[in-house]
Amino acid sequence: MAEKAPIIRFGIMGCATIAIKVSRAISLAPNSTVVAVASRSIDKARNFITVHGLPEGTRAYGSYEEILEDEGVDAVYVPLPTSLHLRWAVATAEKGKHLLLDKPVALCVADLDRILEACEANGVQYMDATMWMHHPRTAVMKELLSDQGRFGTLRSIHSVFSYGGGDPYFLENDIRVKPDLDALGVLGDAGWYSIRAILWASDYQLPTTAVAISNPIKNAAGVLLSCAATLTWDDGRFATFHCSFLTHITMDISVMGSRGVLNLTDFVIPYEESSAPFTFVSNSGFNEGSLGWIAPPEKYEVSTEIPQEALMVQEFSRLVGEMKSQVRCKAEKKWPEISRKTQLVVDAVKASIDNGFQPVQVGR
Amino acid sequence: MAEKAPIIRFGIMGCATIAIKVSRAISLAPNSTVVAVASRSIDKARNFITVHGLPEGTRAYGSYEEILEDEGVDAVYVPLPTSLHLRWAVATAEKGKHLLLDKPVALCVADLDRILEACEANGVQYMDATMWMHHPRTAVMKELLSDQGRFGTLRSIHSVFSYGGGDPYFLENDIRVKPDLDALGVLGDAGWYSIRAILWASDYQLPTTAVAISNPIKNAAGVLLSCAATLTWDDGRFATFHCSFLTHITMDISVMGSRGVLNLTDFVIPYEESSAPFTFVSNSGFNEGSLGWIAPPEKYEVSTEIPQEALMVQEFSRLVGEMKSQVRCKAEKKWPEISRKTQLVVDAVKASIDNGFQPVQVGR
Repeated sequence: MAEKAPIIRFGIMGCATIAIKVSRAISLAPNSTVVAVASRSIDKARNFITVHGLPEGTRAYGSYEEILEDEGVDAVYVPLPTSLHLRWAVATAEKGKHLLLDKPVALCVADLDRILEACEANGVQYMDATMWMHHPRTAVMKELLSDQGRFGTLRSIHSVFSYGGGDPYFLENDIRVKPDLDALGVLGDAGWYSIRAILWASDYQLPTTAVAISNPIKNAAGVLLSCAATLTWDDGRFATFHCSFLTHITMDISVMGSRGVLNLTDFVIPYEESSAPFTFVSNSGFNEGSLGWIAPPEKYEVSTEIPQEALMVQEFSRLVGEMKSQVRCKAEKKWPEISRKTQLVVDAVKASIDNGFQPVQVGR
Repeated sequence: MAEKAPIIRFGIMGCATIAIKVSRAISLAPNSTVVAVASRSIDKARNFITVHGLPEGTRAYGSYEEILEDEGVDAVYVPLPTSLHLRWAVATAEKGKHLLLDKPVALCVADLDRILEACEANGVQYMDATMWMHHPRTAVMKELLSDQGRFGTLRSIHSVFSYGGGDPYFLENDIRVKPDLDALGVLGDAGWYSIRAILWASDYQLPTTAVAISNPIKNAAGVLLSCAATLTWDDGRFATFHCSFLTHITMDISVMGSRGVLNLTDFVIPYEESSAPFTFVSNSGFNEGSLGWIAPPEKYEVSTEIPQEALMVQEFSRLVGEMKSQVRCKAEKKWPEISRKTQLVVDAVKASIDNGFQPVQVGR
């Protein structure tokens, strides 16, 4: 008989805006709870607990060190600015706490490797907080893409994630455009999602080469506000993506195969929490006389009982729970592996931007 | 008082499959009629007239020369393989007949310039047969894209046109993949539409530079079966497109602005003849807590009484009619101008493919 799955006790390291959404997710997931919040200011941590209605007894800490000393914390969610990830993600792992790390996970793959090595050495589970991966829609779409009869051979992928529309306040003040906090700018913040989408659609086979499109837009501090790139594989597959803080909200994935095409336009954050759409067309073509299509794309709608971020927390907590209850002795490797591949592509695109838009080999 | 608009009398030069659709369009348009069909074989011409139910009395010719001598022909529709366009389009103009030329219009802009010069010298109207330009949906979408409050500033454009899915019979036999007939392959046949879409969305401002993506697929004869490219403007705008004979039917345009995004997935041939959809989202964003969107894209549906190809014939015939009845003394320049710009971009992409995927300045 399986024991009742343990409830994973989370500490939240930093009161970023995104921590509001994730602490709600931790409450919504059936196998997790928030037990502590840390900030550089204890008042800020206390205020976060009160304002966002965290469970009574949630402990407030005025430093990140303290939450790592708390023996009642199993796992830490880290939404700090990217430049702080290396230090605090490694420290989390070294204290034997499981790590849910927000994206972009690191400034470069060398930093990420130090984080992943610390997780492995200390036997803790790592997962990046890429929420859309956990929506049931993602699994339904993957099943269609894996159906040779309906999708055929993968030919190309296109993805866009943009938001903000160039809002001047955001461009002046947001941490995502500060070189000392989030030096990857839009490439790390938004491009991360499209790169993950491309890897997801290609069964995590890394592309060979990345070439940035020659007109990225940067702010005065040199941080990327908009960029785009193409990725190619040796077999002729390719992908394009675009990320921007200057464009209206756009969240597109198109996956094109020899026999079918999948489209969705809200992949990062679905239009609504409870259900998410996509379209898929398969084995269509022109009708007699090419006056129209044999069949238009079919509309799908995939509902979910709890939002994708709660499903993410649930899956992470399930893995942590299995380690806690010794059902598994090692962490699940899928999550660090795909995180690392995503970072490798981010790094190659960045290198192409930095070297005058020349092709860059994607690292391994 | 305006006179009743004249009915324009069309000759069809060549019995290509697409001529079936266009001869039907000529019948459906209120101001045009088919009066003659030419083929290299008179039997083929006669058969075309009978099988496709063209008007009684439609004259059949066994050579292209003869249809150009027919004084009862006002305008000629030329659906010949691209390599024959230069000779027969120029001959059509020199005989004083208006020219509806199928795309791709020429193998290079130098050839197209000779065609356009012949049209201008002989005072005949030129139009390329890019049907989707004439769907009322196209005008409705343009109005939204021109609305600064709803669309804002244009940031990027993405377009795909593919079909065929790599059908082996097509790839062996179709004239579109024969180097002596349609040497531009998929770039001319399908890429033409996406390039036109990109120019259309950018108010026909030519991009500065074209860079082909480094993995085009060619057949044994060296004809392009799949390719993609990025186009950039000096102000940071850019576009990507992809065309393929190896991918399932895909007909996408996405136009992204600072305040709005337009999407459609059947731009070349709408799913249905009588009505065509698109979506537009404007001034949306994340809702409180970033749990969803403030508003999802709105669905539009634009109906049409006659199909887009009949509207194309109608517009061409209207312009020809105005010249015939001397309401206008010169041909409408918009159509040759945008055709030439499309060809300039085709040429630049082809040059980038031929020179190892280096950036190529788009000609003027």
